[in-house]
Amino acid sequence: MTKELYDVAAIGNAIVDVIAPSDDAFLQAEGLTKGSMQLIDEARATALYAKMAAGIETSGGSAGNTIAGVASLGGRAAYLGKVAADQLGEVFAHDMRAIGARFDTTALEGGPATARCLINVTPDGQRTMCTFLGASVELTEADVDPAVIEGAKIVYLEGYLFDPSEARKAFHKAAELAHAAGRMIAITLSDSFVVERHRDELLAFIDDHADIVFANEDELTALFQTSFDEAVEAVRGRVKIAAITRSEQGSVVVSGGQTHAIAAFPVEKVVDTTGAGDQYAAGFLFGLAWGRPLEDCGRLGSMAAAEVISHYGPRPQVSLSGLAAAQGLI
Amino acid sequence: MTKELYDVAAIGNAIVDVIAPSDDAFLQAEGLTKGSMQLIDEARATALYAKMAAGIETSGGSAGNTIAGVASLGGRAAYLGKVAADQLGEVFAHDMRAIGARFDTTALEGGPATARCLINVTPDGQRTMCTFLGASVELTEADVDPAVIEGAKIVYLEGYLFDPSEARKAFHKAAELAHAAGRMIAITLSDSFVVERHRDELLAFIDDHADIVFANEDELTALFQTSFDEAVEAVRGRVKIAAITRSEQGSVVVSGGQTHAIAAFPVEKVVDTTGAGDQYAAGFLFGLAWGRPLEDCGRLGSMAAAEVISHYGPRPQVSLSGLAAAQGLI
Repeated sequence: MTKELYDVAAIGNAIVDVIAPSDDAFLQAEGLTKGSMQLIDEARATALYAKMAAGIETSGGSAGNTIAGVASLGGRAAYLGKVAADQLGEVFAHDMRAIGARFDTTALEGGPATARCLINVTPDGQRTMCTFLGASVELTEADVDPAVIEGAKIVYLEGYLFDPSEARKAFHKAAELAHAAGRMIAITLSDSFVVERHRDELLAFIDDHADIVFANEDELTALFQTSFDEAVEAVRGRVKIAAITRSEQGSVVVSGGQTHAIAAFPVEKVVDTTGAGDQYAAGFLFGLAWGRPLEDCGRLGSMAAAEVISHYGPRPQVSLSGLAAAQGLI
Repeated sequence: MTKELYDVAAIGNAIVDVIAPSDDAFLQAEGLTKGSMQLIDEARATALYAKMAAGIETSGGSAGNTIAGVASLGGRAAYLGKVAADQLGEVFAHDMRAIGARFDTTALEGGPATARCLINVTPDGQRTMCTFLGASVELTEADVDPAVIEGAKIVYLEGYLFDPSEARKAFHKAAELAHAAGRMIAITLSDSFVVERHRDELLAFIDDHADIVFANEDELTALFQTSFDEAVEAVRGRVKIAAITRSEQGSVVVSGGQTHAIAAFPVEKVVDTTGAGDQYAAGFLFGLAWGRPLEDCGRLGSMAAAEVISHYGPRPQVSLSGLAAAQGLI
């Protein structure tokens, strides 16, 4: 068996976030639906960026944020994702390595620029995201490094990468390598529109490969086209573990006959919900990799999510490992 | 007389800040003196960046931060500074325009990259800065737009630009244009090492051109090579107004026979002192442009500085105009 090198390895869209304060009037003027994620092309990205308020740039990307959370909890983590050979790509790579995660996917030369996500945060803490995917969707099977995949206890796949067909192939390759090495595959559904676009293929992938599914309510009900309760039962029958997040209502974790309702952690003030689901996954995956009971995995997820929504930016600003120790969770 | 377009126009090093948490051990290992600013070349910038923690990127540069503060106070502001035609240059230009400041200095093509300042923030809130100046020092006389300089009540010059000789020429051109148009020239000494390197030329520039001088204690005593009290008297004799900042001891404002000791504003927790002097200058210049008494100018400066040191990043995160109104200062 391949040597175990990582608790979690993830594959995702490598994206730099541009985060700026906004308001409802701006969203309306720009025709943006609050809380949504939509894809935009480079021209629209340029035009929208020009109208946004001054902000900060920080490395993001859903699975990248999760890996940052795993590392912050003290987990060994690796990331595969495609940046361009440009300044924002360097920023992304730096941040990933600086948190202690392995990241050495070859940067794209001569193609589109590093992906960026324009995030307008309204005073209620909601984030409305417009993503220019750029280089991130140029990930191919060739980028799936067997040493990383086979060396990780859990391989975590970001549903957003179901859109580009070459990346879907990369997921299949990763899943095959992982299972051949006796590893677990986790997938997050990422977005209800991704689910609508790829429902059948996602279901087939889950049936064939996934041990663990992460979803929020919208994504889960979109996948099964039914009520929340029925969707929970449907996913229970298809995977070993499913963790369903419900914003301030916490999460539901199901596994075989077990059902755990996990409360959300209290937050003094919600500043920016960007990264909440990603950090939930980070806490959960870390707990799972370290053999914690499912209920504690969910609590670790709630704790990590609570930290990230209390400030701007999608990655932890304090050591989650310290927080978890203070809560008696590790 | 040229139409008045701006309260303040500034010329400075256009720099993107990379801000990351750090500790004393890291500073020591890297041979960095806490609280200092040192210049580094591109190779050192790359090596140091690789060792720093994950952080955020945000537009900075001393005078650029001041302009952001002036705009946040509701002032009309313009900025002249040199970025490269690259991604970080776009970020800098975006942030400047997004806050409502005029910025249209031509981006440098085919030269060094946009400047960046690597800022390691220790738990005591002190920032230790290493700056790769890149494109920022390629500013020349040709970049001094007469329409901007002649249209500003006060033209604010960043002492850091005394290092590159072409930029010094640009300062002389700006000063001549400003005075011919009946405008005021303010200069900040920026850094005691800048003062050591260019003492005679700085003194000559102040005598010939400066109406207002900003300095901290170190810079002022370095300029006059004497005690603080004697240096205050020396600067009093050379300019119309001098504003000397003293960290938590507030500031001293002198003008002719007047001397005002201004208290620092209370801050619940100092998170990151980056930008404190820049924001003091912003408040002071705004007050001056709006005809406030000198004591109120100093208070506006203290207020703006207190806001910026209470969070990471060198520019205001809330409307300074709102804060000033709440304090009865505007």
